[in-house]
Amino acid sequence: MSEENNSAANPGAAVRSNPYGPNPQDFLSNVGNFQLIESTLREGEQFANAFFDTEKKIEIAKALDEFGVDYIELTSPAASEQSRKDCEAICKLGLKAKILTHIRCHMDDAKLAVATGVDGVDVVIGTSQFLRQYSHGKDMNYIAKSAVEVIEYVKSHNIEIRFSSEDSFRSDLVDLLNIYRTVDKIGVNRVGIADTVGCANPRQVYELVRTLKSIVSCDIECHFHNDTGCAIANAYTALEAGANLIDVSVLGIGERNGITPLGGLMARMIAADRDYVMSKYNLTKLRDLENLVAEAVQVNIPFNNPITGFCAFTHKAGIHAKAILANPSTYEILSPSDFGLTRYIHFANRLTGWNAIKSRVEQLNLPLTDDQCKEVTNKIKALGDIRSLNIDDVDSVIREFHAEVNPEAGATDGEPASKKQKTEENGN
Amino acid sequence: MSEENNSAANPGAAVRSNPYGPNPQDFLSNVGNFQLIESTLREGEQFANAFFDTEKKIEIAKALDEFGVDYIELTSPAASEQSRKDCEAICKLGLKAKILTHIRCHMDDAKLAVATGVDGVDVVIGTSQFLRQYSHGKDMNYIAKSAVEVIEYVKSHNIEIRFSSEDSFRSDLVDLLNIYRTVDKIGVNRVGIADTVGCANPRQVYELVRTLKSIVSCDIECHFHNDTGCAIANAYTALEAGANLIDVSVLGIGERNGITPLGGLMARMIAADRDYVMSKYNLTKLRDLENLVAEAVQVNIPFNNPITGFCAFTHKAGIHAKAILANPSTYEILSPSDFGLTRYIHFANRLTGWNAIKSRVEQLNLPLTDDQCKEVTNKIKALGDIRSLNIDDVDSVIREFHAEVNPEAGATDGEPASKKQKTEENGN
Repeated sequence: MSEENNSAANPGAAVRSNPYGPNPQDFLSNVGNFQLIESTLREGEQFANAFFDTEKKIEIAKALDEFGVDYIELTSPAASEQSRKDCEAICKLGLKAKILTHIRCHMDDAKLAVATGVDGVDVVIGTSQFLRQYSHGKDMNYIAKSAVEVIEYVKSHNIEIRFSSEDSFRSDLVDLLNIYRTVDKIGVNRVGIADTVGCANPRQVYELVRTLKSIVSCDIECHFHNDTGCAIANAYTALEAGANLIDVSVLGIGERNGITPLGGLMARMIAADRDYVMSKYNLTKLRDLENLVAEAVQVNIPFNNPITGFCAFTHKAGIHAKAILANPSTYEILSPSDFGLTRYIHFANRLTGWNAIKSRVEQLNLPLTDDQCKEVTNKIKALGDIRSLNIDDVDSVIREFHAEVNPEAGATDGEPASKKQKTEENGN
Repeated sequence: MSEENNSAANPGAAVRSNPYGPNPQDFLSNVGNFQLIESTLREGEQFANAFFDTEKKIEIAKALDEFGVDYIELTSPAASEQSRKDCEAICKLGLKAKILTHIRCHMDDAKLAVATGVDGVDVVIGTSQFLRQYSHGKDMNYIAKSAVEVIEYVKSHNIEIRFSSEDSFRSDLVDLLNIYRTVDKIGVNRVGIADTVGCANPRQVYELVRTLKSIVSCDIECHFHNDTGCAIANAYTALEAGANLIDVSVLGIGERNGITPLGGLMARMIAADRDYVMSKYNLTKLRDLENLVAEAVQVNIPFNNPITGFCAFTHKAGIHAKAILANPSTYEILSPSDFGLTRYIHFANRLTGWNAIKSRVEQLNLPLTDDQCKEVTNKIKALGDIRSLNIDDVDSVIREFHAEVNPEAGATDGEPASKKQKTEENGN
């Protein structure tokens, strides 16, 4: 459900039903109306470990298309001859996603790009003093002149064109707004803001996007590096301010420690507008997609990754476990089943509580009263003080205790339930 | 340098010298004046893999103290008998950091806590409808009554007291402000806001902290979970709004995928106020501290971790490498040397550019002209199209090329420089 529809039908309804969702007062907000430009095959190729051969690129492109990303961005055909051939090959796959390539603001690059058969070209040029001095050495007049030439050339081929500055947050605001207005007037499809060094913070992002929104009539795309850990929050805040396209890559791979990760952004957006996200993206494919890319670039999924990190849906402290068992919404803003995953209540440790142990007792099918559950919980906590526990430790304490208080019961009760629990555990 | 000092001495100076630093218009901002409550030994103990014995807790506490954290928060002595003993043991270490423990809002817990010898007690109670219904089942009057009793008891022992709500962003705002005002009036040292489920976004955080700041006169502490990837950005924005204490843990370990990570927050804060961060915290200890905790809980440092992830200071694309070689500030907001780390220019790949290769040629001490560097770069890019390259591949192409164009030179030139480069690479 988009934010606009929400507020039109019933002003304030979004606030009451979902207090951490889009703010209906944010008339510019696109939190419920955004698109993804997936750049694993461009920004991601700049990741230290990335070497994608043609076959792997095609496999990744198809997986991204199944997930439902709106655009797939590819390395410039000017980077190398194979990059150019791969661009052509992916354009011929007939994917639902639109195919883009990302070039410097040069006519040579633009001609190569258009010839590959892409649906659109993303042009970038450094506008900060740093990049103007140490990278390309051009002034703003030269930048504007070459931008206009490249844009008009690409437009003449009836494909999409984006113009982006690089290092936008360290560029002169007047220079930026000037060139964005110029390219908007000659009819780009979108302008891009890039936090190339990962220095931006959310309130800065909000202000720059909102200001830009008042200058241009085209769409606004944002690209955030994650050096200071704000790439997801900055993307979210940019959407609140009126941007409507976000650059992402699988696991965030890119230069240095990368950009806004696809999975992390999905976590943020589903918390804000679940209906919109569920209607567009095939979230149950996320884990396979991340595994595919992680394997290709030889990294492990970070233990603390949103959604797919091994502990993302694991609950440990006694008071958390108690409440989660009563109602998962108490300590979960995301539902693991939305991603084809399961929840795990961690009960084999000294922080456990009797509600978690009672739930385990029931899974084991070994009837105990509440007072007996509290008594066996104290035994488990005492053992957990001495050493790290695993599930078998807890189960054997419970079984022994159950045998003591129910001498008539056999020792093998509950095996099937135990196996079921282990499957759930592996599912996380 | 604190933000207040900055703007008092020279209004606007912070903006000119550091455009992504604290905004001098934010009179409430504590971006240059904050403290860390380090919770690896409390929140971190709730991480799925954590089991810290006494010896490991003491080792971690000492390492945190050497890093320079302001507070160390420990698991409640009510959690288990060993937790209580460990609390006592850490209080006796005589660390510079103040020692806190974190308890439920119960007199039984408060008595145990005070008896351990801690410098302060952090009290928490769930205030959201979810937690009131499914966790403790108490109403706001009961919460306020027990809070006052616990606070007055702790205060009577002349140690610090914090009162925090749990799940603050899903609590009724009027209920929240009411109880915060009540506990502020009876003299708590600080009140806490907790995003227990990780649902908050930066602009929400800004508004809640700013509102709370207008109600209470005590300090404001914030605790952010990272389920939707915003824990660092939310912490930063809370400081902008006037909070002055942030809960962190090493690598962010905690319930589910954890909280604001110490290292990631350091990356964010050093970009905003390097002088303040460098004056307070021993950043060169960060990598060892993260390795210590990662080993204790059996996880790997995430490949994309801010600062210490293996690629945090690695630059790959040709245009990036060119500019970084001219001036590192072009593509780095953080300086690796601040953390005792080094930069790595990745030149062994098909995205490489001739500036990166020229730098390598110079390191190898194999003189080539610029045109020759461009020619050998094309050979390297062609090889990089065929397969993944390592440094030895590039070096051998350069050596062969150099031997062709300088038939008089020996084949063994430059070995020492090559060894030096490998050491730099391992340094990352």
